[in-house]
Amino acid sequence: MSKGLPARQDMEKERETLQAWKERVGQELDRVVAFWMEHSHDQEHGGFFTCLGREGRVYDDLKYVWLQGRQVWMYCRLYRTFERFRHAQLLDAAKAGGEFLLRYARVAPPGKKCAFVLTRDGRPVKVQRTIFSECFYTMAMNELWRATGEVRYQTEAVEMMDQIVHWVQEDASGLGRPQLQGAPAAEPMAVPMMLLNLVEQLGEADEELAGKYAELGDWCARRILQHVQRDGQAVLENVSEGGKELPGCLGRQQNPGHTLEAGWFLLRHCIRKGDPELRAHVIDKFLLLPFHSGWDPDHGGLFYFQDADNFCPTQLEWAMKLWWPHSEAMIAFLMGYSDSGDPVLLRLFYQVAEYTFRQMESRSVTQAGAQWRDLSSLQPPPPVFKLFSRLSLPSILLGLQFRDPEYGEWFGYLSREGKVALSIKGGPFKGCFHVPRCLAMCEEMLGALLSRPAPAPSPAPTPACRGAE
Amino acid sequence: MSKGLPARQDMEKERETLQAWKERVGQELDRVVAFWMEHSHDQEHGGFFTCLGREGRVYDDLKYVWLQGRQVWMYCRLYRTFERFRHAQLLDAAKAGGEFLLRYARVAPPGKKCAFVLTRDGRPVKVQRTIFSECFYTMAMNELWRATGEVRYQTEAVEMMDQIVHWVQEDASGLGRPQLQGAPAAEPMAVPMMLLNLVEQLGEADEELAGKYAELGDWCARRILQHVQRDGQAVLENVSEGGKELPGCLGRQQNPGHTLEAGWFLLRHCIRKGDPELRAHVIDKFLLLPFHSGWDPDHGGLFYFQDADNFCPTQLEWAMKLWWPHSEAMIAFLMGYSDSGDPVLLRLFYQVAEYTFRQMESRSVTQAGAQWRDLSSLQPPPPVFKLFSRLSLPSILLGLQFRDPEYGEWFGYLSREGKVALSIKGGPFKGCFHVPRCLAMCEEMLGALLSRPAPAPSPAPTPACRGAE
Repeated sequence: MSKGLPARQDMEKERETLQAWKERVGQELDRVVAFWMEHSHDQEHGGFFTCLGREGRVYDDLKYVWLQGRQVWMYCRLYRTFERFRHAQLLDAAKAGGEFLLRYARVAPPGKKCAFVLTRDGRPVKVQRTIFSECFYTMAMNELWRATGEVRYQTEAVEMMDQIVHWVQEDASGLGRPQLQGAPAAEPMAVPMMLLNLVEQLGEADEELAGKYAELGDWCARRILQHVQRDGQAVLENVSEGGKELPGCLGRQQNPGHTLEAGWFLLRHCIRKGDPELRAHVIDKFLLLPFHSGWDPDHGGLFYFQDADNFCPTQLEWAMKLWWPHSEAMIAFLMGYSDSGDPVLLRLFYQVAEYTFRQMESRSVTQAGAQWRDLSSLQPPPPVFKLFSRLSLPSILLGLQFRDPEYGEWFGYLSREGKVALSIKGGPFKGCFHVPRCLAMCEEMLGALLSRPAPAPSPAPTPACRGAE
Repeated sequence: MSKGLPARQDMEKERETLQAWKERVGQELDRVVAFWMEHSHDQEHGGFFTCLGREGRVYDDLKYVWLQGRQVWMYCRLYRTFERFRHAQLLDAAKAGGEFLLRYARVAPPGKKCAFVLTRDGRPVKVQRTIFSECFYTMAMNELWRATGEVRYQTEAVEMMDQIVHWVQEDASGLGRPQLQGAPAAEPMAVPMMLLNLVEQLGEADEELAGKYAELGDWCARRILQHVQRDGQAVLENVSEGGKELPGCLGRQQNPGHTLEAGWFLLRHCIRKGDPELRAHVIDKFLLLPFHSGWDPDHGGLFYFQDADNFCPTQLEWAMKLWWPHSEAMIAFLMGYSDSGDPVLLRLFYQVAEYTFRQMESRSVTQAGAQWRDLSSLQPPPPVFKLFSRLSLPSILLGLQFRDPEYGEWFGYLSREGKVALSIKGGPFKGCFHVPRCLAMCEEMLGALLSRPAPAPSPAPTPACRGAE
């Protein structure tokens, strides 16, 4: 298929494959949303439990502000954009989550700094000296406004956005990070990425705000592009504020999944700007490059961390396969294909999606699941069960990868070899966000591709793409 | 052997085994010290590089204050207590490390708060809001005084110790941790553990300081013992300051290696106090309990983290096998046997030591090592080598466990199955400390056992021990 225009047969086979994937991701989206609807709602205090075991049992009731904001955003987005999710239960839960954030997220109102984690009833436990809690707060408020029409949510979103921009572009002292003589003025790629994401969120179908933040969007894109280093041979997570490589592990750190996520944020930016040249550069550096360096040739899947000089990373989890880089890769490659029509990108979408949905052996999953349920319902389990469960923890999940056909949602953390390493479905960093966002966006993009009269034009592959063939 | 007194044959076989282990750990100690002597000394600024790759190559020149202090302590201790390490090169390196700490460790002298990590030339990069940098600083200064006789080092040690005690027992505000309404007043076991360790360090052969800190030592022991919870069925890493279990993952967290380390700190305390009843309790709760719950029945080795209710821990590395819990377990079981004569503890020492020294297959280690060396000496490696090395990273280390017969020192991080997961020999948390401390202490204890006229008395096993048979 990479050799020019596909023949009529290929085109039909192609459409069948796209259709099959559209149905697959659609069904998976329903199961994933059902999991969070059933297990995560705190009816008493509002907001969401995100520390959920394999079968949805709450193993900790702390409320992580990132994940509260993300779930509010996700629910509103589904409610707004999918007919089948337009029901009161979803919107009411989102509103209850929004009210929880309004009431408790800020550590010292009217100050805007938000906590990182709260108790179930909203008392601050920990504060991060970064902007991310505030970014997810902003996303949640903006979507709540779009879903409900209540202006107070939008006022909150815009005021918080202005505060974030002030911290990033003018004065970071409000974040409370101490100025240390030896600390490099490093820019993590996450900062301009999150800001670019907010520019798109707030500017969606809103000319006034799109105009207000247009320059900021260009600034974010420039800053993200500064992370392409070494004559375009590597995307580095941390660079100096002047866009130079930093010394040591910090400077050499790479995170393929993060680069792919930045890639689709930038592709959206290219669409808004109508800039096909930038699009080709983004596909080359933020989609193909991290895939080729980050894909595990032995076991498949994307590494979590890498070192640009090929030293062993110091993060203990560097070779683990996490759910979110694979979700982001599916979005990035399908979006890249939708925009460019380059069949290489469609093949990479299939490769990542097949790895992500792979089931190694489905044998004895039910029985295994039953064992696990029995075990975790013992509170506390008698010693004999503790030993038994330690014995069986890996084996009962044998054959599963990210998807869990029995209880829904995805396992988040696989070993390098692809075995389930943690049986949790949610935790301090995994909530109702990356999986449903990926599935919803892929369902939409696949639907759009199928609704096109003819498949996307297939230009001669770019040199970068040829490298991928 | 657990059935009463051993027969004469058994006794001789026993002594042969002890002798063989004494030689083995002694030779290993020489190789480990040689590794750090060859690769870690910063001749220009003083202090030590601890971010060292498999073959000793420096992959980052940051200086972690914990590891600077620990290496100064280790070098001085070896110089003081082992005839064969009594050479100027070791003492000079320790002094250069001590001077580096004196000059740069404190963030804002005369304030005593120390940085967590410094640049190679001593500028602060990060500060932790805990007491641990200061604790290792104190250990280093006290040993430097003992090794050199220079009083200024001891003055530093005692002044810092008084500051630490003030932070822990009177007013923690100097550590800079914010008081948040939802943050539980939790006591990590590490705090009384480190303090108890310092009490022993400063009080060694020093009646005045031993007297000064005697009450503090008893307080530390009481606080550590408060972490035994659930009617003695679990040792929990974090409890309330009143000694009650805390809610959620924080409260249920267990760390078997840490409990074993606390165990031998407490055994030393029991010796000082001459308290055989407390000793039996410590052996039961801090040696046997964590071993039985923490030993992986499938693959051997001690888990890193566990949950007391058997939920899946949220730490991604929970099932990995780290070098230090195994070093601490070897010390704890050999010390427990030396003190109590209970043969069950000797068998557990052998079990852990055999796992720790195990070589699964030595096949093609040399060739493999050569590959790795070639790769990491390329700066930056051409893409083809990058891919190749990613391909071969796990396979080239196939068959190795903690020990590295080719380059010396130990790998720090194995997968659950016992494969080398990170090829580094040193990093932000692994330096010249746990391995040589374990080997040196085991060599001394084995020597003492062998020098006894007859093997240790073998009392009827305690109930706890019977459980282990």
